[in-house]
Amino acid sequence: MKSREDTDPRLHQIGARLRELRVAAGYSSYETFAFEHELPRVTYGKHEKGSNITMKSLLRILDIHRISLADFFAGVKA
Amino acid sequence: MKSREDTDPRLHQIGARLRELRVAAGYSSYETFAFEHELPRVTYGKHEKGSNITMKSLLRILDIHRISLADFFAGVKA
Repeated sequence: MKSREDTDPRLHQIGARLRELRVAAGYSSYETFAFEHELPRVTYGKHEKGSNITMKSLLRILDIHRISLADFFAGVKA
Repeated sequence: MKSREDTDPRLHQIGARLRELRVAAGYSSYETFAFEHELPRVTYGKHEKGSNITMKSLLRILDIHRISLADFFAGVKA
């Protein structure tokens, strides 16, 4: 049984920010977003829920959205 | 043989920023910093060299330095 999602609220804020960017990019479903950008669908879904994302995975998503690390985290109140 | 360090320049900038914070906190050696803050020494050393750090590991270090994600990444030009 996978342990409960990580509970650090900042991880959830990062996930929410990823979701916000995905929706703003016009994708109502994370599956379609992940599929169209060749991201692992299940893993990407966990990222949006606040999983312990690695920097390389985050950078890959930010490159899709063409947003810098500084701009991404400026929108994360943590 | 471990693969070459990850080459994304942004990972190296993150590592350099961690080093900058560590030195500013008065630690000339990363081993002492890691030991005194109960961080795994070898792993922490790799973080400063640009390894693919996870968000939880990064948050743990930022908490030691009492700096937010936004302030940390504002200092990363990537």
